[in-house]
Amino acid sequence: MERLFVIKVGGNIIDDEGKLKSFLTSVASVKSHKIVVHGGGKIATTIGNKLDIESKYINGRRITDSDTIDLVTMVYGGLINKKIVAQLQALNCNAIGLTGADGNIIPAKKRPPLGDGGVDFGWVGDLNSSKFNVQSLMLLLQNNFTPIFASLTHDGQGHILNTNADTIASSIAVALSAYYDVRLIYCFEKKGVLENVEDENSVITNINKEKYKQLLDEQKLFAGILPKIDNAFAAIDAGVQEVLIGDADDLIQNTTDKTTGTLITQ
Amino acid sequence: MERLFVIKVGGNIIDDEGKLKSFLTSVASVKSHKIVVHGGGKIATTIGNKLDIESKYINGRRITDSDTIDLVTMVYGGLINKKIVAQLQALNCNAIGLTGADGNIIPAKKRPPLGDGGVDFGWVGDLNSSKFNVQSLMLLLQNNFTPIFASLTHDGQGHILNTNADTIASSIAVALSAYYDVRLIYCFEKKGVLENVEDENSVITNINKEKYKQLLDEQKLFAGILPKIDNAFAAIDAGVQEVLIGDADDLIQNTTDKTTGTLITQ
Repeated sequence: MERLFVIKVGGNIIDDEGKLKSFLTSVASVKSHKIVVHGGGKIATTIGNKLDIESKYINGRRITDSDTIDLVTMVYGGLINKKIVAQLQALNCNAIGLTGADGNIIPAKKRPPLGDGGVDFGWVGDLNSSKFNVQSLMLLLQNNFTPIFASLTHDGQGHILNTNADTIASSIAVALSAYYDVRLIYCFEKKGVLENVEDENSVITNINKEKYKQLLDEQKLFAGILPKIDNAFAAIDAGVQEVLIGDADDLIQNTTDKTTGTLITQ
Repeated sequence: MERLFVIKVGGNIIDDEGKLKSFLTSVASVKSHKIVVHGGGKIATTIGNKLDIESKYINGRRITDSDTIDLVTMVYGGLINKKIVAQLQALNCNAIGLTGADGNIIPAKKRPPLGDGGVDFGWVGDLNSSKFNVQSLMLLLQNNFTPIFASLTHDGQGHILNTNADTIASSIAVALSAYYDVRLIYCFEKKGVLENVEDENSVITNINKEKYKQLLDEQKLFAGILPKIDNAFAAIDAGVQEVLIGDADDLIQNTTDKTTGTLITQ
């Protein structure tokens, strides 16, 4: 099978012009098939504040009301997505900017109100990777496009939905894992999963399920990293070959066999 | 050759939720290949005002400064484009929302400062349809995607450029006229070109160059329509088979042989 890298990049890179340029230069230099998934960044909050769109929370969970979905559609799907595309094109990478609505590639379901209280999260989409329009995505990949996904999907009834970028990335990786040898890469603010959170040089270069159990038993890992590792294993259990957690600066290295980040495998 | 409709829709439809829905329902019902090109609408001005982005003019010509290109990238390329895509998807039309940067389909050149005064129009793109990436666009069409273009292009150096939607539509029509039997449709606020501007029922159903000369000699036409007709003939001289000027409400009819708008031919 051909190699495919699904690369998730977060707000810390998006918000920093220099870091973004360096990241995109790395992406453009990857010769295999590749897909980028990006979230927003502080720019969405800044523009939202100017437009008097308040971030709303219920029980600590963010609510995507009508104004907020319009805001993220503009900022993620327009401003950030098209800037990334234009910059990649300048680097001779044939980027095509998409949301999950485009080509119906990522259909989603509006999240139902949660629990007894019936908290309505608003225009938020949950995914089912078996519903993805894999053929359209593969058509683009096989014709040497590099799809750049904003973290937006749609409900098939005319509405854009806000969807977690990590979840989109892992679901794309799962959906394509039957057709490509997929490495899902989470760009992270550290070099990888650290054995000692104080020591940037203590990267655990390989974690499989056995090793993970051992690390958990030894209570060595920083609690904040556990959901990321759990998500990585969930993707692997669903078919993804490898998940890598590493620094955006090390992206090129982390697309080779000599990874510097943390490679998570079965 | 297969039939292709290139449909330009303007702000008067975009700004009106009911009109937009009706227009998109018509688009979805067209069985042939189709491409939609849209501009913005008042929503860009409204959002720009809230963000304190002033519209700037020099000698009556609008200037696209950095703030303004960000604004239109958000609003045209994000908000409007993705709303159209999601609504078309709900109508079972496989829309894919694009700017000219995506897939490098519409490369452009930043407009050089004009004249002796050197008025700099800012981030505005001029087109050369011979540079269009026709193969990528045809790949999408032949796989039953309906491309929806926001009126944005790019300079190949990492910058999005603002470009007139009428010009994008006619340049796409020209670029594809060697491969498809193209009808370029301008959705218009009237039924078509009127012989008597006071009388909505006085649509001139066919104009060729001879007829146009005659109409000009008789000084019957409303001056405001002349640039549109001149542009139509320019497209036809560059290879486009037919140009139609008509009401968005009559779109379905105007994709048949029994047009109600004004059909402009050689």
